[in-house]
Amino acid sequence: MDGARVRIVAVGDELLEGRTSDTNSTRIQRALGRHAIRVEDIAVVHDDEAAIAAALDRTEVGDIVFVCGGLGSTRDDLTREAIAAWAKVPLVVRDDLVAEISERYRRRGIPPMPESDKQAQVPAGCVPVTNPVGSAPGLVGRLAGRRLAVLPGVPAELQALLPRVIEELDRLGALPAAREIHLWRTAQMAELAVARRTEPVRERYPDLGWSWWLVDWGVDVRISGESHQSADLDAAARAVDGLLGDTVFAREMVGLPRVVQDLLMASGQTLAVAESCTGGLLGAAITGEEGSSACYLGGVLSYANAVKVDLLAVDAGDLERHGAVSREVAEQMAAGARTRLGADHALAVTGIAGPGGGTDEKPVGTTWIALAGPGGIQSGRYRFSGDRDRNRLLAVAAALDALRRTLTDMPAFAPDALTWGRPA
Amino acid sequence: MDGARVRIVAVGDELLEGRTSDTNSTRIQRALGRHAIRVEDIAVVHDDEAAIAAALDRTEVGDIVFVCGGLGSTRDDLTREAIAAWAKVPLVVRDDLVAEISERYRRRGIPPMPESDKQAQVPAGCVPVTNPVGSAPGLVGRLAGRRLAVLPGVPAELQALLPRVIEELDRLGALPAAREIHLWRTAQMAELAVARRTEPVRERYPDLGWSWWLVDWGVDVRISGESHQSADLDAAARAVDGLLGDTVFAREMVGLPRVVQDLLMASGQTLAVAESCTGGLLGAAITGEEGSSACYLGGVLSYANAVKVDLLAVDAGDLERHGAVSREVAEQMAAGARTRLGADHALAVTGIAGPGGGTDEKPVGTTWIALAGPGGIQSGRYRFSGDRDRNRLLAVAAALDALRRTLTDMPAFAPDALTWGRPA
Repeated sequence: MDGARVRIVAVGDELLEGRTSDTNSTRIQRALGRHAIRVEDIAVVHDDEAAIAAALDRTEVGDIVFVCGGLGSTRDDLTREAIAAWAKVPLVVRDDLVAEISERYRRRGIPPMPESDKQAQVPAGCVPVTNPVGSAPGLVGRLAGRRLAVLPGVPAELQALLPRVIEELDRLGALPAAREIHLWRTAQMAELAVARRTEPVRERYPDLGWSWWLVDWGVDVRISGESHQSADLDAAARAVDGLLGDTVFAREMVGLPRVVQDLLMASGQTLAVAESCTGGLLGAAITGEEGSSACYLGGVLSYANAVKVDLLAVDAGDLERHGAVSREVAEQMAAGARTRLGADHALAVTGIAGPGGGTDEKPVGTTWIALAGPGGIQSGRYRFSGDRDRNRLLAVAAALDALRRTLTDMPAFAPDALTWGRPA
Repeated sequence: MDGARVRIVAVGDELLEGRTSDTNSTRIQRALGRHAIRVEDIAVVHDDEAAIAAALDRTEVGDIVFVCGGLGSTRDDLTREAIAAWAKVPLVVRDDLVAEISERYRRRGIPPMPESDKQAQVPAGCVPVTNPVGSAPGLVGRLAGRRLAVLPGVPAELQALLPRVIEELDRLGALPAAREIHLWRTAQMAELAVARRTEPVRERYPDLGWSWWLVDWGVDVRISGESHQSADLDAAARAVDGLLGDTVFAREMVGLPRVVQDLLMASGQTLAVAESCTGGLLGAAITGEEGSSACYLGGVLSYANAVKVDLLAVDAGDLERHGAVSREVAEQMAAGARTRLGADHALAVTGIAGPGGGTDEKPVGTTWIALAGPGGIQSGRYRFSGDRDRNRLLAVAAALDALRRTLTDMPAFAPDALTWGRPA
């Protein structure tokens, strides 16, 4: 299967009318990560038989072609028909799918719509792959010399079907052997800094697959190798472990809020927050994870200075003397939230998110983060260089990472924290 | 220019490696809205001269072609070279751009990199369009029979350049005449409900351009017409006004947080929040707008019941009797936040975001929203049917809309609020 190429055809009027962006292709790319196969290109086309056929015509014999979207039961959904016509095969009604669809309607207590039978049709040569969260099955098969994988366009359905479809493609022998993968999720490092730090290892092991991704919580590093490279892969992984060190918050695909939640649960400790510039984003990130109520108590959004004084017992004189964005105020916010909510740990964030409000001394992006815990209070100053949204998100990530570090017996604030978020 | 078609070529390895999705095409589609021109398709290709040329080959004479990405100054950035080679024109170094780039480096106090001169190169036949937020200019011109618009791939740069590039295309006579547009941004209505309500007007004026978009805060409706249709457009707009009525929170492209902030500022009133299931998302949405500190004081994240009692003075007996997700608790949370923070208005949200925590009586998605204000306390119950993320977002939108309605002298909670968010 060496040299097999993946092409993606994304079908949907909504992708061409300013309504929504094609995010499914990225999901497919990530799901293929373990197979280290190159995605050649993406064609985004209208719900139109001729346009779908033209996009399929541009694929080549031997290609693995993902087609997503247009598998619904309405008139607009033409992907099944387009594929069958293009490959010159009939659409076959599968009795098992008809039964499945009726059963689904029966369970929901509503009469089946006449159009829904459409979803029981399969181009001859394809097998259906059961959809765990919706009614349109995926389709996998060999048609016109291509290995075809057809998926619904609803992101949640596509995401749920992807592993099953990839497994089915694998069974068809369409995919290169799965590669071994190592993943590092880092926090508080710029993309370029991560790349520079790991560059010597990449130079030593250039034949492994290397990638760096900037994601919400920081930068992900991934290396992959084929089975005959496993000695190299292990050696490279050990080297990367050493170089990235305590900036790594996870070696698997979980986010910083989940990592922090797991650490809190393991230690039976609780958390509270006090937010100024982030205005609730930190609390929202923590409570975005199911189960957060077991370790997270809540917090105070002290946007106005009066709230910092009244609810968090910040000293009005310190506010006056040092300003709301200062070590003193951040530390008192954290201490106040910890006491007021009776939590084991409290995180506080106060900063200038921008675009206005900056001064020469405290430019936009200046942010103080403090953490009050059983062992005392720690704080760190950051200077983020993004826009308002980005600065707030980076502050949330820095705050969560400070807690992660404390809960794993490290100083909450790395000495080079100040350099993070600056233009690389 | 009737029948002119737009094709988009999005260039970038990162778009094909699972790192990021192509959102620029959606920005282009929206920016073209006023010209009511159809985007035919999108090709996403690697930073590779042959791949870019192949995508350009698939466009047709007369097409308007947007090419985005690959205009940086590193070796990977090949879009300029690829376009020039494909169109068989030379790359010309523009002295004005060289001077602009030197000046940019001078202002930033760093020596220019030798590669940066690359950004002063322009395919003969194109004019540069100044980039207000970055170093790569846009390019517009007629090449090989196409009207070409070339934009950097960094979303903020593309967004800033888009109006200028579209103006330049317009000057070239490439675009159909700008259409008159009416926009309605609605809250608390399902997409299908909005479509059904406006369907009679659409049937009466089928020649106008109609679109519906589901967005974060609700559903947008847009109708557009050419200048000779302005009588129809006005009549249709009046009819839509009547049908959508008070569900409309804006007639221009602003979000619900901005609308609420403007209303508060105009009345000189202040706002506080009390959040349970949204965990900070409501405060984050409000403070996402610059200038929010003038009317927003902050709030209490009362995730744990003890915090509801201690900081918001919710009655422990009511919590026990009615549960945290109840009218009684929502109203006491709002009243508590209003008193505690000394605000004119306070919004409270308490609900079951899911996926766990639902019961027969209070299934996942059940959410109480309360608003305490100078005129008393109002509350409403919702039943959202999304996943955890969506339910939280819908709760934020419903809370903000309740405040908007109050500030414009309407009942905070529409009588049919209960039906909102159900499967259409």
